Amino acid sequence: MSDTLAQLADVLAARRHADPESSYVAKLHAKGLNKILEKVGEEATETLLAAKDAEHGDDATRQAVVAETADLWFHSLVMLSHLDIDHQAVLDELARRFGVSGLDEKAARQSR
Amino acid sequence: MSDTLAQLADVLAARRHADPESSYVAKLHAKGLNKILEKVGEEATETLLAAKDAEHGDDATRQAVVAETADLWFHSLVMLSHLDIDHQAVLDELARRFGVSGLDEKAARQSR
Amino acid sequence: MSDTLAQLADVLAARRHADPESSYVAKLHAKGLNKILEKVGEEATETLLAAKDAEHGDDATRQAVVAETADLWFHSLVMLSHLDIDHQAVLDELARRFGVSGLDEKAARQSR
Amino acid sequence: MSDTLAQLADVLAARRHADPESSYVAKLHAKGLNKILEKVGEEATETLLAAKDAEHGDDATRQAVVAETADLWFHSLVMLSHLDIDHQAVLDELARRFGVSGLDEKAARQSR
Repeated sequence: MSDTLAQLADVLAARRHADPESSYVAKLHAKGLNKILEKVGEEATETLLAAKDAEHGDDATRQAVVAETADLWFHSLVMLSHLDIDHQAVLDELARRFGVSGLDEKAARQSR
Repeated sequence: MSDTLAQLADVLAARRHADPESSYVAKLHAKGLNKILEKVGEEATETLLAAKDAEHGDDATRQAVVAETADLWFHSLVMLSHLDIDHQAVLDELARRFGVSGLDEKAARQSR
Repeated sequence: MSDTLAQLADVLAARRHADPESSYVAKLHAKGLNKILEKVGEEATETLLAAKDAEHGDDATRQAVVAETADLWFHSLVMLSHLDIDHQAVLDELARRFGVSGLDEKAARQSR
Repeated sequence: MSDTLAQLADVLAARRHADPESSYVAKLHAKGLNKILEKVGEEATETLLAAKDAEHGDDATRQAVVAETADLWFHSLVMLSHLDIDHQAVLDELARRFGVSGLDEKAARQSR
């Protein structure tokens, strides 16, 4: 389980069918998959540029990388939601590849 | 706290200084930031293409979106590690934006 | 020689130092390289999405690919201009790689 | 008319149905649209990174921008070819937007 992402996914699921006038997430869904993917591509580009600026940069440039990566992950979560894909499947795939098992995770969580 | 991502970040930190001959992660770091960002850009592109194929697709096309998004998140974690940025800062930024506080998270976890 | 691109490059050079209030090109330059590169990345993404929609699409979807590719080439010309790189160097590089020599070009043009 | 691009487009059309074993262009077409678009996305990313390195760089970094932009334009020409779109339509769109008419082009060419 990934708590911040899990809660964010819950928020995104709830807002998906909200009023597009008042919810940015609902507006993205209303505009459709291409609009959501444009944002994913846009944020990926901005993440790369921020990372280049942070290569020899200071704390402010590193904070920009944090903000852009947050935008990238956020819009990829909206994409998953739009396609009715549980974000947990992505985390499970990452856990599977890196030998971070659910049991290990549970044990790790309890020991903290 | 984000358990899978937290554990993956630990794995990535440990592998950063491993032998580039035997570790893909160490090899990426040895090649430098541009190589890592090329991979982020590449995986962002592949995520978009997989999402387009899943738009009117079946379970196999949706599984491809899961795999590509995992690649995208993975390489963005390597980027953060390369820039000495804690991935938790990205999760905190997301939590801050969406009003998902640490206390809320703890309460949510206990109630499950 | 590439006439449309050459004339467009001339137009871009002239507008580079125009009033940012009245010229989109001048405004891009005033905002700096990152803004220009954001547009290149954005238009690359939109080109990919348009191409996917044209994969099994009709004439309208193919016209969208034309428009997005024009946007991509346009913003890459602005990027070259911003970095004081002659677009002709890119055409020369393409000609060199594909054995399309200047002499061949001249002969080809005269025979038309 | 854009001579280098026109000749390159001719070369690309001829190679489209060549042996994928011996022709890179034929191999790209054989692998399909997604493979071609992955290359467009990859080269767009590499162009951005090269441009960032050239921002405060020397002649070598500027030459890298030329090479990456050539790759980007090349793969976008392959994409157009794969979708049976004439690259001239893109140049016409650029000419139309910037008031660079065919007649102007002809006059400009004759006066050189």
